[in-house]
Amino acid sequence: MQTTLMLNAERAVSLLQAEIPHLPLEGKPVELYEPIRYIMSLGGKRMRPVLTLLAYQLFDEAVERAVAPALGIELFHNFTLVHDDIMDKAPLRRGNQTVHEKWNENTAILSGDVMMVKAYQQFLQIDKEILADVLGRFNTTACEVCEGQQLDMNFETRSDVSIPEYLDMIRLKTAVLLGFSLELGARLAGQNETIAKDLYEMGVAAGIGFQLMDDLLDVYGDQSKFGKSVGGDIVANKKTFLLLSALQHAQGKELQELKSWIENKNAKPEEKVKAVRALYDALKVKEMTEAKIEEYFELALKKFALIEAPLMKKRIIKDLLLGLMQRQH
Amino acid sequence: MQTTLMLNAERAVSLLQAEIPHLPLEGKPVELYEPIRYIMSLGGKRMRPVLTLLAYQLFDEAVERAVAPALGIELFHNFTLVHDDIMDKAPLRRGNQTVHEKWNENTAILSGDVMMVKAYQQFLQIDKEILADVLGRFNTTACEVCEGQQLDMNFETRSDVSIPEYLDMIRLKTAVLLGFSLELGARLAGQNETIAKDLYEMGVAAGIGFQLMDDLLDVYGDQSKFGKSVGGDIVANKKTFLLLSALQHAQGKELQELKSWIENKNAKPEEKVKAVRALYDALKVKEMTEAKIEEYFELALKKFALIEAPLMKKRIIKDLLLGLMQRQH
Repeated sequence: MQTTLMLNAERAVSLLQAEIPHLPLEGKPVELYEPIRYIMSLGGKRMRPVLTLLAYQLFDEAVERAVAPALGIELFHNFTLVHDDIMDKAPLRRGNQTVHEKWNENTAILSGDVMMVKAYQQFLQIDKEILADVLGRFNTTACEVCEGQQLDMNFETRSDVSIPEYLDMIRLKTAVLLGFSLELGARLAGQNETIAKDLYEMGVAAGIGFQLMDDLLDVYGDQSKFGKSVGGDIVANKKTFLLLSALQHAQGKELQELKSWIENKNAKPEEKVKAVRALYDALKVKEMTEAKIEEYFELALKKFALIEAPLMKKRIIKDLLLGLMQRQH
Repeated sequence: MQTTLMLNAERAVSLLQAEIPHLPLEGKPVELYEPIRYIMSLGGKRMRPVLTLLAYQLFDEAVERAVAPALGIELFHNFTLVHDDIMDKAPLRRGNQTVHEKWNENTAILSGDVMMVKAYQQFLQIDKEILADVLGRFNTTACEVCEGQQLDMNFETRSDVSIPEYLDMIRLKTAVLLGFSLELGARLAGQNETIAKDLYEMGVAAGIGFQLMDDLLDVYGDQSKFGKSVGGDIVANKKTFLLLSALQHAQGKELQELKSWIENKNAKPEEKVKAVRALYDALKVKEMTEAKIEEYFELALKKFALIEAPLMKKRIIKDLLLGLMQRQH
């Protein structure tokens, strides 16, 4: 039988966008629920729930069955953004005021808490035979996301962060939730542990790749397309893969120069970005990062090759990931 | 058959205390998990999980089956304390530094988030036939607790809070979780919706009574026994049942005097407490509050009378609540 309703990524986004206004996010007092509707309305790529739907579709056509839990992941993701933005004192999120800026910190803490509960509520429509297993895996993932955020904060005040430690931090903070998004699709479609694990590992590898790509674009991206101001990580001395690689490979004068830019608190942002980027160029940091991204992307594809499913449906996921990996450069 | 292992409240506390060090609260980075073990080790009455165990025992002897979810409630309760203490800028909790004071706000936000996930993890041992129902009821309760906290914060800057609004706020912030603790015991023991609802309503009524008792003890309690400094609510102009009742009943000179104490920012705390307490005495606010407590306690007992269970086991719960209602006065 031919699939007449096959979802591609765009259609998956549309399907999810259409459901978001119907999420049960009304309640009193309004101070608590308005920020939740606000952050959920700001958009974003909806990458996590899209991956859940597309992974589900690999095995089963009744994609609508996966929508509620997929939106649970999106709610959880947005909850982490609200709380992370408080901790990072971030003024903007997707070009709009963050919740703690638009309202206040207390409201951001508390409406974030409610969002987490609402995320769990979305999962309760899952078949009772697999509910506890799915929630157990979600809980593990949720704790890991928090661990990643704590490590990220710890790294700010540490000067001895290694590249493996950094990769582990971004795995926890960013990648495991992408992995779980794919895994969830498989589990909801009744697939076994092996398939769930392969898809999880695919998502984790791709997620680390995406974060490294973000690090790269911050330095080498096209500002008009990237959305954020280029060089922000350099100005903030953020310990990205690029900076850690540069510190590892620089020697002699180059190392001295790099360190002096890091320590110089009065440096003009533009000069600093230009100078540090020139050092990165000399040290071939761009090439190193691209090679690392390639390595993780290859790993993701290798895991995906283990999944037996209709090629047309696999193609949709592969194209989505390829598109994300190749943006802006 | 005689029950050889009947739990009374003290034994229930001991049983729970013995399990807390074995909760899966180890993890890395330590900055994230140490605060969780810290707050869980500070003690407290463990009233919520005790109620779950004692409610379970009304219907079934295998109380150990209720321990894991009961501790889920305790984890959730402590999570709310950690986040509420940030919002309230509270320096002390149970006589010890609050988490955000001992570490910092970011760690308190994030370790609180992990605690909530750990609370959910405790529930996953519940029988799959009732898991989704139990979690659905827990989610409703968890949102309500957050709603209560938001209302409490809203009331700080409002001058027109009515007594019904106040009672609804404390119902949400405090009482519904006590109600759910009892309800959970019944559900875990396989009881029907009617019994679950009666126990829930009993707990809610008792919970409102407890909070009113707290309000009363702040003004009329024996400082050496109460633990907190007496009159703190008066000094802070906290809109308790006592203040709202006084404002409702005072007229003429008494109302003027009460308002002038509220507006006087330079008042010496001891003088203010003494004067406002004298006004409360004149207005019979103590008697009004005691009558209201009695009303809620009667309602709790009425609901409890609907529950068919061995009298000896019902007696244990009744004695516990009576003891809590009669403390210090």
